[in-house]
Amino acid sequence: MVLGVTAGGARRATRTLRLLVLVSLSVCICVGRASSPPEDSSMENIVTEKKAEESHRQDSADLLIFIMLLTLTILTIWLFKHRRFRFLHETGLAMIYGVLVGVVLRYGIHVPRDISNVTMSCPVNASPATLLVNVSGKFYEYTLKGEISANEVNNVQDNEMLRKVTFDPEVFFNILLPPIIFHAGYSLKRRHFFRNMGSILAYAFLGTVISCFVIGLLMYGCVTLMKQVGQLAGDFFFTDCLFFGAIVSATDPVTVLAIFNELQVDVDLYALLFGESVLNDAVAVVLSSSIVAYQPEGDNSHTFEVMAMLKSFGIFLGVFSGSFALGVATGVIYVKLLDCLHVTKFTKLRDFQLLETALFFLMSWSTFLLAEACGFTGVVAVLFCGITQAHYTFNNLSPDSQDRTKQLFELLNFLAENFIFSYMGLTLFTFQSHIFNPMFIVGAFSLFCFPLLNLVPTQLAVFLGRAANIYPLSFLLNLGRRNKIRSNFQHMMMFAGLRGAMTFALSIRDTATYARKMMFSTTLLVVFFTVWVCGGGTTQMLSCQRIRVGVDSDQDNSMSIAEGSERRSTKQESAWLFRIWYTYDHNYLKPILTHSGPPLTSTLPPCCGPLARFLTSPQAYENECQLKDDDSDLILTDGDISLTYGDITVSTDALGAHTSGGTAFAGMATSDDLDRELTYGDHELVMRGTRLVLPMDDSEPPFTDPHHRMRM
Amino acid sequence: MVLGVTAGGARRATRTLRLLVLVSLSVCICVGRASSPPEDSSMENIVTEKKAEESHRQDSADLLIFIMLLTLTILTIWLFKHRRFRFLHETGLAMIYGVLVGVVLRYGIHVPRDISNVTMSCPVNASPATLLVNVSGKFYEYTLKGEISANEVNNVQDNEMLRKVTFDPEVFFNILLPPIIFHAGYSLKRRHFFRNMGSILAYAFLGTVISCFVIGLLMYGCVTLMKQVGQLAGDFFFTDCLFFGAIVSATDPVTVLAIFNELQVDVDLYALLFGESVLNDAVAVVLSSSIVAYQPEGDNSHTFEVMAMLKSFGIFLGVFSGSFALGVATGVIYVKLLDCLHVTKFTKLRDFQLLETALFFLMSWSTFLLAEACGFTGVVAVLFCGITQAHYTFNNLSPDSQDRTKQLFELLNFLAENFIFSYMGLTLFTFQSHIFNPMFIVGAFSLFCFPLLNLVPTQLAVFLGRAANIYPLSFLLNLGRRNKIRSNFQHMMMFAGLRGAMTFALSIRDTATYARKMMFSTTLLVVFFTVWVCGGGTTQMLSCQRIRVGVDSDQDNSMSIAEGSERRSTKQESAWLFRIWYTYDHNYLKPILTHSGPPLTSTLPPCCGPLARFLTSPQAYENECQLKDDDSDLILTDGDISLTYGDITVSTDALGAHTSGGTAFAGMATSDDLDRELTYGDHELVMRGTRLVLPMDDSEPPFTDPHHRMRM
Repeated sequence: MVLGVTAGGARRATRTLRLLVLVSLSVCICVGRASSPPEDSSMENIVTEKKAEESHRQDSADLLIFIMLLTLTILTIWLFKHRRFRFLHETGLAMIYGVLVGVVLRYGIHVPRDISNVTMSCPVNASPATLLVNVSGKFYEYTLKGEISANEVNNVQDNEMLRKVTFDPEVFFNILLPPIIFHAGYSLKRRHFFRNMGSILAYAFLGTVISCFVIGLLMYGCVTLMKQVGQLAGDFFFTDCLFFGAIVSATDPVTVLAIFNELQVDVDLYALLFGESVLNDAVAVVLSSSIVAYQPEGDNSHTFEVMAMLKSFGIFLGVFSGSFALGVATGVIYVKLLDCLHVTKFTKLRDFQLLETALFFLMSWSTFLLAEACGFTGVVAVLFCGITQAHYTFNNLSPDSQDRTKQLFELLNFLAENFIFSYMGLTLFTFQSHIFNPMFIVGAFSLFCFPLLNLVPTQLAVFLGRAANIYPLSFLLNLGRRNKIRSNFQHMMMFAGLRGAMTFALSIRDTATYARKMMFSTTLLVVFFTVWVCGGGTTQMLSCQRIRVGVDSDQDNSMSIAEGSERRSTKQESAWLFRIWYTYDHNYLKPILTHSGPPLTSTLPPCCGPLARFLTSPQAYENECQLKDDDSDLILTDGDISLTYGDITVSTDALGAHTSGGTAFAGMATSDDLDRELTYGDHELVMRGTRLVLPMDDSEPPFTDPHHRMRM
Repeated sequence: MVLGVTAGGARRATRTLRLLVLVSLSVCICVGRASSPPEDSSMENIVTEKKAEESHRQDSADLLIFIMLLTLTILTIWLFKHRRFRFLHETGLAMIYGVLVGVVLRYGIHVPRDISNVTMSCPVNASPATLLVNVSGKFYEYTLKGEISANEVNNVQDNEMLRKVTFDPEVFFNILLPPIIFHAGYSLKRRHFFRNMGSILAYAFLGTVISCFVIGLLMYGCVTLMKQVGQLAGDFFFTDCLFFGAIVSATDPVTVLAIFNELQVDVDLYALLFGESVLNDAVAVVLSSSIVAYQPEGDNSHTFEVMAMLKSFGIFLGVFSGSFALGVATGVIYVKLLDCLHVTKFTKLRDFQLLETALFFLMSWSTFLLAEACGFTGVVAVLFCGITQAHYTFNNLSPDSQDRTKQLFELLNFLAENFIFSYMGLTLFTFQSHIFNPMFIVGAFSLFCFPLLNLVPTQLAVFLGRAANIYPLSFLLNLGRRNKIRSNFQHMMMFAGLRGAMTFALSIRDTATYARKMMFSTTLLVVFFTVWVCGGGTTQMLSCQRIRVGVDSDQDNSMSIAEGSERRSTKQESAWLFRIWYTYDHNYLKPILTHSGPPLTSTLPPCCGPLARFLTSPQAYENECQLKDDDSDLILTDGDISLTYGDITVSTDALGAHTSGGTAFAGMATSDDLDRELTYGDHELVMRGTRLVLPMDDSEPPFTDPHHRMRM
């Protein structure tokens, strides 16, 4: 069947793809069915090779289900891209397939009752982590899996298989999240990020906290109501509500950003949304852990206490800044390490690139794990490690390794993300302890017969939380910004508040208590709703809000140049935070960490001479008369630069050419160069080579842009 | 400290590296220490967030140990490469670091006794897989971890941490082995492999079986002796001995091959060794599983029975051929799939490459899992899947994806391999149930006070097993081969019989019984010994055996051409197996699976016309007058080709040039072209582009080689 098709036209390919999708789906289901253990099970010789082999086969089948799901998703994406179908993103698709397979696993397969499961009523008054059972002289070791509610005890046998496909939540945190977060940091479009740094930080920090508290308060109201009506079967405290608010505040607009990327939506909107969502996750993780750490003294552990709250706040600050420092520190260590290693000569370049990439991968991951092991937050650490590496290490990597590392993390991110989303779909039906409390979801007036409508109020709370984040903050920010965040941008940001991998990972991490189980189930529904509805409606929303699409960022720039000096000054004013940082970075950090920038001896005061000489790499001196600044895309005002190292600036580029960048740019003065420099920066990180520093003499042709030449 | 070094000379870099290695090692140890749980543990509220967080932190620390070990290994390799230090390969190094950290974990860290572990003597007469414990009304679920010997019960608490760093053996089989095996298949140097196919198959199949039985018999003699002396504390049957023989027969000369690669040792020796070791693993896995499946009927289950043995033999054949078929089939499906998908147009090439690479990765892994889930052997399936994909898919991939997939699997292979070896080092001290029975290792006359000498007899058995494989088989093969396997090659192959990842994975997979535990411990020592001693002595052995090094395979070829027709005919005769296969592949498989080769309509008999037209890709017709044969490196005799599609051969290449390949080749006749074609093939798979088919007219300049032109 598959062999029979030998590549016809596009229509034939589409038909084949459909066929393949069907085949894959049926394979998926077959595997699910095949994974049920055979019926004969003898009571004796349980720990034999047979048993081990069977268990291994089962494990393989479980893993295969996920691999097949991912393959299926990729095949369908291929089809969608071919058809230019934008209503459903790959993540939404992965979820749908996950749900389908989940349904099959749950209802389609009936595992015969395994008689080897035994319920014991032992005279122990505790549930230890490890249990040693003495069975007629032989000792067997058991490990605790978790508590089972009394009414589920009889279902345990049936659920054996479902439990098998349910992963340890640690897998998400230790293995799947790091590449996603690191990739976000590593692929951050730094130019736009730094240009909007103030707003992004405001949204990420203030916004997340506001959103967390608004959602927490609304949910607390809902929970109180439920208690009164008697619909609550367990404890649900205010801290639980706040915790829910925190985990639900982590936005993940991966779907929206993919569409933005494809349609080339306004770069500032993209930067705001991407930057916010990246930092958002970091803040939400730390916030949720500090809410968990809130423990007032005394008997009633769920009252409000100022000291405990201050302590939580302190934890938040401490953990965040600690993780930040750790991430940056490991990033910096890696930069220096690579620097040292680059001195070694290799007989084979291929070996060298392999080592470089492997080291890069391991260092990134170890940052995450180190932070987690130290009690900090790995997500925050790995995010800032990624940003640091993109900023400093990237220039120290060999060009081939730059490509390899980018491709590697792209692939890992792609696989991990789709895995999480398809797993989400799967857990909707296979997770053991779902508590879909419609009361929690819709409040007291909800009806059981409208399960879909039930979703609205939580969704409402989640949306209100986001609204309370976006609109007031945008209003405040607009007071300070000249380049206003327009109302259609605000609506779009509001709409793009999808919940995704991070929210899921946070909620599945601990599903021990009644409240947490309810949260997990609700979170799952929130993710489904936002990814499908908001994600699917992005293109409609964009056209409805009349947001410009098809904006080439080059074109955008030349337009802004044509608009004259008005817009430039706007940017400069809004980015005061950035300017301070840039000067510091360019004068001190760059020279220490990379081979670019001016030697420290010329930027540090003369009294620090010996230190400066010690810290500056010899290459910086070598480059002195041919100063390359690979990151000149971050230069903002040439005034800063001329102040700092005006004495060593030269006007020849690496090729010794004095040619102008092109007639279109020939007439413009130095102040425009920066804007242009800001533009030609991170479209293709690989393209950046040695670049000239701006000449100080205005009468000279101002700017030689190798990229421009390359495009011509 | 790290910051202080800003890249001086090479010596300074070396010193820094040493420092960094030290720092990393201490971090490793610190992490190990940090990972010990705090001392206060309350009996109540065990399943709280605190506990979960602590467990998470512990998991992170455990993973971090491995990541640090890998990082350390990479750093040291960097240093070694710099120093051109060849005595210790990266895998040997990884093991040493593993042993060091294992010692620290075992003896350096004392975990306080955890009182929450409880030993119960419950009135159950079985050890179920899942245990439900009723603790004062609440039900807790426990899962079986394994049996613990009575004298170890008291140590369980102490070993809590050690057990944590001991991975589930399934991890090796489902996650770490697939990339290693796939990479082996994918990076197989096909030209040399196919040229020596007969010998490689003989070594791999016959050789492994011989080695398995020789080792099994020797060990059985040893075990019988031990029983008589009373040194055996448990059962050890003949099947166990055979099983040991099988797992120890899987050679893994990764160390040797790396050195061969670096020193450019004779390509035929390389091909023999690599091909043998790759297939070896596959055979050993299937062999060991069919030995496990040997179950005679009746009461005494360890007697010899012809029927049971025949059944085992049938299982061996069935599983091997089934896995082979599955691997090739999924490879072929992937080829066709990619073919269909390539029809779709993409707006962004980058997206496309990402999907292509992701699909490639997932398909390879799913082959492994599918085979395992179906009861076949994943290793065999994934190996042949890799070979199929390298042979057929590679040409259908976009050039960038060819690079990406190669790099990806190179990286995965590197990481997985080093992980396994460092884990091996770690388990030497952290594994719980080691049984180092010196009697098993040295026999009755061994002394406890010479633990190192103890190793010799098992080593002797292992060596004898290999000797019984290599020497007699080489003798037989040399009867048929004109290009003899010289005695120094035989000695080298004998010496290069290292044991590695596969042997370890097979032995750790099941350590339930006494015999298996003893095997595992012994295997570990065998691996250590062979990797360190044999791996370290490779260069000495090479010079001792006077094996030519620094052989450029191009040069080798031109020499063989200079030697005249004698050697050519040798090759042709020895490769009769290959010639049959090649004709079939070139005429039927290539046209069906790729866009290269002649259209089927010209190779199939006229009666199959409609079928041929259906199976041939339209592109094959398009290419008809410009016939590209990307795999002409596999062409052996032009006689075959002229017979098959002599009517459609043209003598212009893609560029329309009629130039000769170079003066050196100008005077040579067609029969030499093939030998040359065989040579310029898989040095760099990426380099292969459209190539001309040999012109039939001998008076024309015979051969236009784009590679040669590229080199000039």
